This record gives sequence, C-alpha cells and structure tokens, in this order.
Amino acid sequence: MTLVTEPDHCTHSGIAASDRFAAVRRLTTKLCDPLVTEDYVVQSMPDVSPTKWHLAHTSWFFETFILRPHLPGYQEFDAHFSYLFNSYYVTLGDRHCRQNRGQLSRPTVEQVYAYRRHVDKHMQQLLTASEQLPGAIAPLLDIGLHHEQQHQELMVTDVKHVFWVNPMRPAYKPAPPREGSAITPLAWTSHAEGIRLIGHDGNGFAFDNESPRHKQYVAAFDLSDRLVTNGEFKRFIDDGGYQRAELWLSAGIATAKADDWQAPMYWIKQDGEWLNHTLAGMRPVADDEPVCHVSLFEADAYARWAGCRLPTEFEWETAVAESGASAATGNFVETESFHPRPASPTATGPQQLLGDVWEWTNSAYLGYPGYRPPPGALGEYNGKFMCNQFVLRGGSVATSNTHIRSTYRNFFPPDARWQFSGFRLARDA
Amino acid sequence: MTLVTEPDHCTHSGIAASDRFAAVRRLTTKLCDPLVTEDYVVQSMPDVSPTKWHLAHTSWFFETFILRPHLPGYQEFDAHFSYLFNSYYVTLGDRHCRQNRGQLSRPTVEQVYAYRRHVDKHMQQLLTASEQLPGAIAPLLDIGLHHEQQHQELMVTDVKHVFWVNPMRPAYKPAPPREGSAITPLAWTSHAEGIRLIGHDGNGFAFDNESPRHKQYVAAFDLSDRLVTNGEFKRFIDDGGYQRAELWLSAGIATAKADDWQAPMYWIKQDGEWLNHTLAGMRPVADDEPVCHVSLFEADAYARWAGCRLPTEFEWETAVAESGASAATGNFVETESFHPRPASPTATGPQQLLGDVWEWTNSAYLGYPGYRPPPGALGEYNGKFMCNQFVLRGGSVATSNTHIRSTYRNFFPPDARWQFSGFRLARDA
Amino acid sequence: MTLVTEPDHCTHSGIAASDRFAAVRRLTTKLCDPLVTEDYVVQSMPDVSPTKWHLAHTSWFFETFILRPHLPGYQEFDAHFSYLFNSYYVTLGDRHCRQNRGQLSRPTVEQVYAYRRHVDKHMQQLLTASEQLPGAIAPLLDIGLHHEQQHQELMVTDVKHVFWVNPMRPAYKPAPPREGSAITPLAWTSHAEGIRLIGHDGNGFAFDNESPRHKQYVAAFDLSDRLVTNGEFKRFIDDGGYQRAELWLSAGIATAKADDWQAPMYWIKQDGEWLNHTLAGMRPVADDEPVCHVSLFEADAYARWAGCRLPTEFEWETAVAESGASAATGNFVETESFHPRPASPTATGPQQLLGDVWEWTNSAYLGYPGYRPPPGALGEYNGKFMCNQFVLRGGSVATSNTHIRSTYRNFFPPDARWQFSGFRLARDA
Amino acid sequence: MTLVTEPDHCTHSGIAASDRFAAVRRLTTKLCDPLVTEDYVVQSMPDVSPTKWHLAHTSWFFETFILRPHLPGYQEFDAHFSYLFNSYYVTLGDRHCRQNRGQLSRPTVEQVYAYRRHVDKHMQQLLTASEQLPGAIAPLLDIGLHHEQQHQELMVTDVKHVFWVNPMRPAYKPAPPREGSAITPLAWTSHAEGIRLIGHDGNGFAFDNESPRHKQYVAAFDLSDRLVTNGEFKRFIDDGGYQRAELWLSAGIATAKADDWQAPMYWIKQDGEWLNHTLAGMRPVADDEPVCHVSLFEADAYARWAGCRLPTEFEWETAVAESGASAATGNFVETESFHPRPASPTATGPQQLLGDVWEWTNSAYLGYPGYRPPPGALGEYNGKFMCNQFVLRGGSVATSNTHIRSTYRNFFPPDARWQFSGFRLARDA
Repeated sequence: MTLVTEPDHCTHSGIAASDRFAAVRRLTTKLCDPLVTEDYVVQSMPDVSPTKWHLAHTSWFFETFILRPHLPGYQEFDAHFSYLFNSYYVTLGDRHCRQNRGQLSRPTVEQVYAYRRHVDKHMQQLLTASEQLPGAIAPLLDIGLHHEQQHQELMVTDVKHVFWVNPMRPAYKPAPPREGSAITPLAWTSHAEGIRLIGHDGNGFAFDNESPRHKQYVAAFDLSDRLVTNGEFKRFIDDGGYQRAELWLSAGIATAKADDWQAPMYWIKQDGEWLNHTLAGMRPVADDEPVCHVSLFEADAYARWAGCRLPTEFEWETAVAESGASAATGNFVETESFHPRPASPTATGPQQLLGDVWEWTNSAYLGYPGYRPPPGALGEYNGKFMCNQFVLRGGSVATSNTHIRSTYRNFFPPDARWQFSGFRLARDA
Repeated sequence: MTLVTEPDHCTHSGIAASDRFAAVRRLTTKLCDPLVTEDYVVQSMPDVSPTKWHLAHTSWFFETFILRPHLPGYQEFDAHFSYLFNSYYVTLGDRHCRQNRGQLSRPTVEQVYAYRRHVDKHMQQLLTASEQLPGAIAPLLDIGLHHEQQHQELMVTDVKHVFWVNPMRPAYKPAPPREGSAITPLAWTSHAEGIRLIGHDGNGFAFDNESPRHKQYVAAFDLSDRLVTNGEFKRFIDDGGYQRAELWLSAGIATAKADDWQAPMYWIKQDGEWLNHTLAGMRPVADDEPVCHVSLFEADAYARWAGCRLPTEFEWETAVAESGASAATGNFVETESFHPRPASPTATGPQQLLGDVWEWTNSAYLGYPGYRPPPGALGEYNGKFMCNQFVLRGGSVATSNTHIRSTYRNFFPPDARWQFSGFRLARDA
Repeated sequence: MTLVTEPDHCTHSGIAASDRFAAVRRLTTKLCDPLVTEDYVVQSMPDVSPTKWHLAHTSWFFETFILRPHLPGYQEFDAHFSYLFNSYYVTLGDRHCRQNRGQLSRPTVEQVYAYRRHVDKHMQQLLTASEQLPGAIAPLLDIGLHHEQQHQELMVTDVKHVFWVNPMRPAYKPAPPREGSAITPLAWTSHAEGIRLIGHDGNGFAFDNESPRHKQYVAAFDLSDRLVTNGEFKRFIDDGGYQRAELWLSAGIATAKADDWQAPMYWIKQDGEWLNHTLAGMRPVADDEPVCHVSLFEADAYARWAGCRLPTEFEWETAVAESGASAATGNFVETESFHPRPASPTATGPQQLLGDVWEWTNSAYLGYPGYRPPPGALGEYNGKFMCNQFVLRGGSVATSNTHIRSTYRNFFPPDARWQFSGFRLARDA
Repeated sequence: MTLVTEPDHCTHSGIAASDRFAAVRRLTTKLCDPLVTEDYVVQSMPDVSPTKWHLAHTSWFFETFILRPHLPGYQEFDAHFSYLFNSYYVTLGDRHCRQNRGQLSRPTVEQVYAYRRHVDKHMQQLLTASEQLPGAIAPLLDIGLHHEQQHQELMVTDVKHVFWVNPMRPAYKPAPPREGSAITPLAWTSHAEGIRLIGHDGNGFAFDNESPRHKQYVAAFDLSDRLVTNGEFKRFIDDGGYQRAELWLSAGIATAKADDWQAPMYWIKQDGEWLNHTLAGMRPVADDEPVCHVSLFEADAYARWAGCRLPTEFEWETAVAESGASAATGNFVETESFHPRPASPTATGPQQLLGDVWEWTNSAYLGYPGYRPPPGALGEYNGKFMCNQFVLRGGSVATSNTHIRSTYRNFFPPDARWQFSGFRLARDA
C-alpha cells in the first residue's frame, strides 16, 4: 500500500495511536446505540449490509491485516469469521456471498460485540507494547481506522434503508427542530485555466487512489457557490424532468423508467406534498436543504435541464484548493443530526464543499497517471473498482470529520442513490 | 367454510375450547425456546418465513377472523399488522410482499410476543364468556388452531433451513442418541380393485379440500409396507440416478441440473461419507431411516429406477383405511426429536403411514368432485392453490399428533424439498 | 411404444401406406404456401419454433426412427441435423437449445426442403419395397405421421404468433367473408353417474398416453352444449373479471398481473372496440364465435365467475361417447379458414366438441392407471411431461381431421395461450 | 450538430456529393453479396442487429434527416418504417425494441432493398438538383455517410456472430492464403510530457464527440510499437491469466466467471490446438496476428500481467500525431480479407495504429471539455452514451479507409468482445 503517511505514526496530531484507535472504534458502537437487536440483522437490498456485518467486518480487518501477521501468538476469535466477514479480498480466499449477508442469524449480535472486544483488547496490547509503533504497523493502523470510518458512514446509510423498506417506518433518532430559511441565491466562483496539481500532497493519511499527485490541465470554469437545493429540484420534477429523455444519459432514463423513479430516493408525495424519509422519520421536504439521495443520472439530467453541467473532480479539487475550505468540525456525532444543512445566506465564497453531501462529479473513477495498486490483498482495496463508477467528492453529514479530505475520491455506480449524495453545478467560463 | 365439525364444539374430545386454544398456542412458543432473537428475523429463501412472522401471522389469523368480527369493542394491537401479517388473503386487502419478509427488523420479537399475549387474552375472554361457544365461532376456532398447527410445522422446517444456509451450522437442539438397525426388508400389501369412498367422513375437523367424501374407482394395487430408506436412496445415487434423464420427468431433470442436485436436500458428501444437516446438527446419514427432504421429482425418478411408481392419493388413503393405522402418539414435542424413525423389523402390515414423513403421491392437487371453496376470505385458504402442485399424505415428525388425519391433503410444488417429505412405492397388482 | 394399431398397417382405411405418407407430407408443405423465406426463420418467443425448424424436425423424425434403423445403407442427409433438429429426446444425445432456434440462418429454407425430399424419397423406397409393410415399421410410420400432424398445427399457431409480434401485422391468407349470427342460447346435457371406460379402445392409432383403457367413476354432471363465446367472454371482461382475484387461481392472477392480461391473447381494444389478430389479419371480435387463445387460468376464472366449473377430461370423454360426435370433415385445409365457427342455432345435442377449439379441462395431465412409457427414445414422447400441465380435448380448426380423436389428450401448462384453446362449462348435476 | 466541415461540401476531395453517396451506398450492398436471404433475418444476441435491419436503418437515416425535411413532396416509403428502423432517437418518437429485431420476418429482404432504391433515387434527385449543395444538407450528408460506414462495420461484426452461433459454422467468404511470419519483437516509442492539443482540428468531417479540440496535459510515456499478438496472449492464457483474479478489475473477473471466458471470443480449443472462428471459417489461431475480439477487461488484465498498462486515449492520439501515421489504403473491400495483419518486422516506428484492430484505451468515454451535444435528434447520436463505456481508437480491418481518423473515438462497454477489438501496451516513462 503506497500510503502517504506522516513521519511519526505513534502520534497523529499529537494523539497516541491507542487513543485514536479507541476513539474511532467507540464511535462505531455509539452509532448503534439507537438500534435493537433485530435492526442489526436485516439486509434490505443487495447493496446494504446488516449492521452486525459491518461491526464484524471492521474487526476482521484489524484481525486479518494487523493481529494475525504482527501479534505473535494471536488466536483468531472464530474460525468461521475469515470466511463470513471477508468482503471482497479474493487474495484472502473464498468468502460469503455478499447478497446473502442478511441470511445469517448467527453469529449473534452479542457474539459480534464479543469479537470486537477480543480484537480491541489485542489491538491495544499491540499498540501499547512499545513507545514507538513498529513501522510495518503504522500504515496498517491508519488504513484500518479510515476503513472503519468508511463503514461508519455505510452503517448509517444502510440502516436508513432498512428503516425505509419497513412500512412501520421506524426512526433512528429524533432530529433537533430547525427553522426553514430563504433559499440563498445561487452565485458562481470563477476559476482560471492552468495546470493544476491534483492528488494528495503526502501530509497525513490518504488512500492509494488519491495518488500520485500529478499535473492536470484545467480549462477556465465557473462553479456554483452552493449545492442544488430541494426547492430547485422540485422545479425540475414539476417541469417533467423525470420524463424528458432528452435531458438524460441513455442508461439513466432506462434506469429511471425501469425503477419508476419520479423523485429522489426516499421522497414520497402525499396529499400533494413531498415528504422524505429521514433518520428522524418522515418529514416534509425542506426547500432550502441540499437535495440528497440522487444518482449521477439524476444530477446529470438536472444539470442539463439547468443549462449547466456537473464539475469534473479536477475542477472540484481546484476550487476547494482555491477557496481554502476545510472540513467543518462538529459533525454528525456531536450534532446528532444527519440532515444536510442549508447554505448560509451571509457566507461569501463557495459553501457546503466538505461534510454536507457527497457531490457527484462527471469524472469516471480511474487511476491517476502513474497509479499502481499496492501488492497483496490491500491492493484490492481501491484499484479493482476502476470501471463503470463515477467520483464523488467532499464527504457528507455522515462522514467523520477526521475522514474528510479535499483529495478524497469516493466512487459509486451512476445509479446509486442510497448514499448521502447530491451535487453542485459548473459551467464553462 | 364447509367445515365438517363435531356437534359440540365447546368440548373437543372432552377438552374445553379455552384449554385447547391455550395448549396449541403454548406449543407454538415452546418451539421457539431454543432460538435467540436473531433467529426469528431471517428469511433464508423466498419459501421460508421468519419465525417472528409465523408468530405474528398466526395471531393475526385469530384477530382477523374471530376477534374483530366477534368480540365487541376489540381494538387491534397495531394498525400496521393487518398489512404486514396477512399472508395471501386477497379479499382482505393489500399485503406485504412474501419474499421480503426477511427485510423487516420491526416489529421486534418482543413486540410480536406482546401481540400474541394481546390476542391470547382477548381470545380467552371470548372463549370463556359463555358456557357454550357461539355457533359462528366454533368452526373458526377449529380452523384457527389447525392453521396454527400448520405453522408450527413450518416454523420447524423453516428454521431448519435458516440454520442450513449458515456456514456456522447452528443446531436447534441436541437429539437423543439412537442405535442403527438393520434395514427391514421391503414387503407389499395387496389391495383389491373397487369403488372407494375418499375424503373426510364428517367426524371431527377437516379442511375444506378433504371434502366432499366421494366415490373413486381404484384398480387393484400393491403398496410397499414401509418408506424408502436412506440406504436404498444411496444406491439410486450410486447408480447415477441424478444423471440419468430417462428416469426423470422432463421438468425434474431440468431442475436437478439447474440447481445441481446430487442428493436429497441437506446431504453433503465429506471424505466419501454422506452427512446430513438435521435439527441436531450435521450427522452421518443413517441407512435405516426413511429418506427425507426429497422432491416429487426425486421420488418419482427413484420409483421409476426401482421399476415401481408412486401411489395415488386414493390408493394411499385406501391402504390406510384398510390398515386401520392411526397417528402415533408421543410425537416430536414429547420426544424432542425430529428424526424420522426407522421401520420396525417386527411389525406386521404397513408402517410409517402417519407421522413419519410426508409421502409424495402421484396425484395432482385438485378439488374433489363437487368441491367448492367456501365464500369469503377463508375460501382462499386451500382452493386457489389447486394448480401445479402434488398431494402429500400422512404427516411428519414435525406434525402435531392432533393435526394428523388419514384424509389430510398437504400439497407442494413438485420441486419443493425443504419439507419433511419422503415417499413409499406402489405397483399395479 | 405400446401403440394400439390396426391389424394391417399397410392399408389404413383402405389407403396404402405410401399414399398416406405422401398425403400428410404434402399437407405440411402446402401449409407453407403463403409464406416467404423470411417467415420460415423467425422464433417470436421461446415456445414458438421457426417454420423451417418444424419442416426439418418432422423429417428428422422419420430419418431417426425409421430410415436409419430400417433402411439398409441409408445415408443421413447432413451430419449436423441430428443435433439441430432433435427436439427433446435425451436418449438420442445432445441437441440444440430450444430457445435459440431462431438464431440459425442455416440450413437455408431451400436446404430444408431438399432434406424433406431426401427423406421422402427414401421413405417411399421403404414403404413400397414390399407388399406388406414390415411389422416393425408400421407403428413407427403411424406415430411419425401423427407426429407430423401435431407439427402441422404447431406451424399454424407459431406463424400466427410470428405475424402478431410484427407491427406490420402481416396476414397468412384472406378469410372468406362470414355473416354474424345470433348467439345460440346455452343449454346443458345431463350425464348420469357411473363407472366409465376411459381411454382408447385399440381400434386405429392412438398415442401411448391414451392408454390403458380403464375404469373411472364419474359422478353425475351437466355439460354445456356449446363453447363459451367471445360475446360471453366480453361480459366477463366488462365485469372486471381480469382484476377480481377471488375468481382466479393464485398462480393465475399472478400471471395475469405480471403479463398485464386484460383480454384473451391477440385481442386489442381500439377506439372502444375489440379487435383480434387472426390469420387473415386484424378483425373485429365476433360475438358469436367461440372464445379462443385463452389460458387454463382464464377459462377457470370465467367458469367461476359464471357459477360453474370446467369439466374433467373424464366427463368430457363421457359426453362425447354419449353424444356420438365425430370429427367434422372438411377442416381447415379444405375450407382454408382457421376461424372457429359459431354454434349452430338449429343443432340438437352438444356441438363444437371436435375440431373447433381445444377445450381446457380441469384435469391435470397424468398417466392413466397402469400407464408405462414405452422403452427407448419414443418413451420420451409423452410420459416425461406429466407434471404441471392440464389436459385439453377435442382438436381445433388447425387440427387435421384424421388427427382428431375423442380420446386424444393434448396438454399445455395452465398459462399457455398461443394455441387455439377455448373451453365449455360444466356443473355438478 | 456542431460538425466541423470543409468549406465546399459539394466536392469532397474533389468528388461530387452524388458520387460519394453512391459509392458508400454501393459498398453497403456489396458487403451483402455473400449472404443468402435467411442470413439477413437473424439476431444472434441483443447486441447484434439483423443485416436487413442495418440496410433499412441506414436508409431510414437519410429519409428522416434529409429527405423528409429537405425534399419537397417526398413521400415516405412505408409508414411502419419510422417505428421499425429508428434505432435510439427518443426525440423522434417510439421505436421497436432493440432486442426484438430478430423477431421480424417482414419487411422482406427484397422490400428492404426496394426501400434502399427508393431512398437512393430521391437522394440523387436532391444531390443533383443544383450545382451547389444547399448549406443545410451538406453536413447532414456527411453524417449520413459516416453513419452508414459505421453500420458497414457493424454488419460485418454482426454477421460474423450470426455465423458463430450456428453449429454448421458457415463462412462469409474464403480468405486468401497467408504465410505465418516470425513475431516482430516488441519495441517502445518514447513520448515526452507536455500539453497536447487533443481532438479534431476542423479539417474535414468529424463527429461531435471529437470536439472541441482542447488542451490536455500528458505525462511522459512509452507506447509499444505494435499490437499484442495471439502468440503473446496464449502465454497469458497458459499462465492462468483467466483464473487469476488479482490481475483483473473486479467487474471483469465477475464477467469472466459468469460467462466462462477462457480465451478471446471466437477461440475454441480442439485437440490441444487453438482454433478461431473467422469470416473465412474456423482456422488455427495465428501467433503473429494481433489478438482480436477481446474485451477491455481482458486487455486490462493482460496489461497488468505484462507489468504494463493500457494507454489513455490522449496518449494514443499523441503518439499517432507524432508518428505521422495515416490510414492504410486498400482496406477490406479491396483485399477481401478481414484478418488483421501481422506487424512488419522491417518497419520502423509504431505500426498497426490505423485500420488493424480497434485499440482499447483506459479512458472512459466522456465529453471533452466544452462539449455540448447539438440540439435536436442528432444530439442523441453520441452524447447520451457517455457513461460506463471505454474509448477505442484506430479503426479495424472492417472500417472503411475514408472512415478512419486519428481523432475518431469509438466506444463500447468494457465487456464487449464481438467487435474487432485488440490493444497495445503502454507504460510510464
């Protein structure tokens, strides 16, 4: 894994490895506080994994990549788990079929928590064994923790879907009340043409697919200073946007018809009013909030309808670099809210770049020039998915603050909608 | 519902209705004793329902057909349940899609038990309200209890499958040890030709599809005096039975190839030895036990291989009537074993007719002459399935003793294997 | 093949075998007269075979079962054809996948006709070699000719479908004009209970599945004296028949919904009027003609809506025997019309029993008591399909007169509609 | 359509429009010379269109975009054809389902040729009406002719597949004999980093997706000077390449397993020797010829196995520009051979760039910066497919010489194999 890491891995922003480990692992279980046992078991569609699978898989990751090779005498918790909780690492052998994860009543939730405790205990033993974390372990710890943070977000998106398919419409947790605001008028920031340096600069952790940092010629462009809102998206719907094939990619309109899309995922029209399913239950769609749970297909069609286009990932990264934006602190765990926030009418410069919704770009997910997947099983982490996916940038309200980076490349197929995904507009200068 | 019932419904074999109700309901929950919460949630294939669904659906049955129409002032437990736990009664409105029953984390298991207690309480209130059970309720109580007994068996077959798809292979409960016995040589009973009266005679409860009792001409036939055994079936396998298309129905060999059948369901060959998945875990296949978990297709192919055929349901019922067989007492709840027992080498006359395995017949499941489904929702109970299914007779080790009758017509599609289904041979006299 | 045949096979109703052979073969090609080359190639759905496939397969049948084993020195026409034109005889080796028959541009139509001529020449050589047809060949000739007659009807039903899926709606041939008639009021014939002899009596040819002739107890019943008409079926449609689940078998309404059935196959509503696709092109639906191109599911639902039921195949055969009906002469080839004719208002006794439309019965297609498929490949002809099909009786306007028998058992799955299939009503006496 | 065209469209390289039109149209029908009527009808898989559909669709294109709007009084040939032969232009209304093109026996081949003659006659009338071709028509003629040339290649690739699925393995036409040659050792050409101008420069015709010409930063790279050969690809196969998941994209190995890929399309191993299906029939695989009929998935896996990668489309275009390569003359029509030729051992500089096999690049098919689809139906020509496809460059032996350009962007999904597609290697400098 060509991970770009800091010189001293034992401390990361001055925090001891064992404390970082504990903090990330604690947040994972904290996210499960609102759940009952049955909620951990269900797989509501093939893309979704049961919560208990996420809890076990993230533990399996540390067990497989750190404890087994690096902790002498380590005994695996259960011989079945290497088969059950390997997600997609072909190099590591056969694994349980992804779409059947909801068919497993055992191990129980309690056994999965015991597995976590077992892994935690041995990880702490390893992390605290010496003053200085061994060089081989430091980058594996980094990737393990960022891997866990990815699954924290997936747990939230997945349980949201589990609650959605249930006619009883359970809520994850109540949301604090919020006042509607006037929609901030859309403005544009202009960006000059030139060769840009794209990709991670080597300070701190990054996934392999953010490297190598490389030159990219970017023509002059404008970027909208905020995300497209629910209110704006309603006008697209009202204008027949979902029926007008000329606005869509060919595969997009085919999907929209086959799956009967009439609005973003989680929206339901009731008595003439749009409601949407949230982690706090059904709520009226708020016009001032960024539209969320749309696919690349819908984002692309909207942009064409609006006479604009989606930005490329290079334009997006350029704009963030020029704006000096950084991830907002006080994200979801602290605020206990997963509702993307409206843009601020008083802010200047681009807003909502980091930590609001994942922003679809019109860039296919491919390796950067010079990219080579690292050898071994971890080489399967990102590289083998570079096909038929689009890049999303920026992180969402369900992304940990310490997991958000301006060079971070998330990727999903163009029809994916169950993530916290929205978009902003771009245009040629 | 043209249910043929006893004159006095308040007592049934001298037992008060409220006691009968309590006893059947109690057995249902007793069957769940070995389960943990997660086991209640999983649907391992479309044919299988989660245990908690069975628990709720059987309660919904009493709520829908008895409490709502007959208990003044009854308040339904939860407004969602009439949608969630209606199995297939179109007359009663829309219902949750069968194959998605495993997608529901809520209601929780505890809520489902609360639902059962709510229904039990009000049923007892109704059943004990007067000395004499009102005439409208008596037949509904009967059908509700027999319906619950059907689901008791389904719970057992379904949880067996849930454990099967799990690589950890959990066991439901340990089985008492048993000694292998020599296989009883197969003998035949001869039955003369003649017009037989087929169907229920009106004494005690029967489902509508067992009536009208009617005349059927039956040619002379011989019936084997015991079930086909695992040992015999192994010889069919060893003789290439699963590959020899000429032995099979066309649809049968197509299914066998498509699903890669090489042996009965739940059999695995390991180190040259056949093991099978049981409710007590994986065990070596016992040669003297009746073969179980075979489809009509396999039973039919075996019979052709053996130079015989399957009996018709009329032959089977004739043979039982002539043998005077009655359901063995001391069935699974008492013995705590779901393992079909070997034939007895010392018995005379046909054995294993009632309460061992469901026996496939070569009779299509159709209405008897003069059959009409009763009006209303309960008319959907049996009649609308009279298409592309075959009749099975006799009950299994997972059938309650009080639910076994010689006229009982179970029915499944010819490819179904997850029931406790076996067969015996017949031949023209 | 336990074919029940006449003592002297060389003459059949006084006609020489070679003449019979020539006559049947000639009709097959005559049926192709209205076709252009392209029409021979297309497979419009998996159930349909291209015309050229039918032409070749029927020749392959004689080549395989008669010429190769019985004509010394016979050279097969083309080594590929035993693979390409074997329909479903597993015993004879691998064969081309049924659903891909429309993917073959070669052999050309002209090559297929050459194949036919090759087979015809050698068959005539064999049939005229001696005064007396060898005993082994006679029954094979019979089955070969009846097999060809089955495919004559299939060619007509298949090409009708080929023209249906084409938006240009080609016609096979013009129909003679006909006058509408008043609908004959429906009357019933009564039939007493008793043991009936069902099955073929051994005079003349019959397929194996019509034997053994055996006793069947039949309760008293009434049978409608004519077929259900288009006009009557329209009232079922207008009464919401296709939407009312309580009228249907469970699998039936599921199919009707999944395939969006709103009327019989080939019906289209245009400007408020029902038209139907016929071999003479689109025509207004004639109220007095028997309804055709309905499935068992629709026939069964209609019967329930009408407060009646479908007859069993035993009742139907009993009624025909008692009526003395025989196949009308002057069937489709002579009249050049494939339009089922209205009932005659002046006739007495049951009408339209033979040669109008295939009549669905409520009998599952199973072997008669004592039935055993013959050994060898021809044993696959009928026996291996005795599962999940229903019996149809009587023959249609597309059935050759010499192919119609009162004991003939046609069979199709309950959702099949592209055959000339209709029904009449029955009721308990 | 923002087509970049020459100043005077009436003459194109000094050839009159009517002559150009006649020449292209003539070649289309000449390609059909080896076919019999039945060959025109078959659709061997959803991606394939019947030959007669290609013949009609290309005529429909001229009828729809030129004759109807621009020839006063033009009468359409057949009212059904606008429905039947519209490929994918949603703007123009409903159209026949692509995957059912093989279900149409009518119009006949002769009718389709009559349609072509009808269109040809009126096109000539329009093209010769005035000295100077009207400005609105010139770019439409260009696109119509290039469209026809695309379908010429598709006709060849499609009929190759039609012959492939036929066990009789018909041949399109015999190939001239060729001598095997020693494999030319692979060498590399080096290319410096820098900003490159990518896209069409406006001289002559180009499709909209080749514009705008724009700046692209390209890092230094090496490109192999010839295509990967069959002989080299055999070594990949022999090294277990199709089984080694670590070499593949995740979606690639899943496809390879699901479709049981063991070699390039059209390869069959027989008695230990690789044969491949060609338009001249089955032939031994020639080691010195470029590998063909591989998907992006296979090309990508091979490149990884070889320690290299595929070039981007920008690298490829850069290399062609620097090499000064131009399309070879004397392509398939003249040589009557569709066999990709071996590299020349005596050549210097990169070979086989134009007119050999389409070369997979690792570039997703997306719009160039500033690209906007033209308004109207022709805007659907290229733009709406910019999703989940990869770019191929260079043209093949089945591409007309006048249709090959260094800026031409062909595109197919990464699993497509029935085109004449191969690849060359690249590496970072």
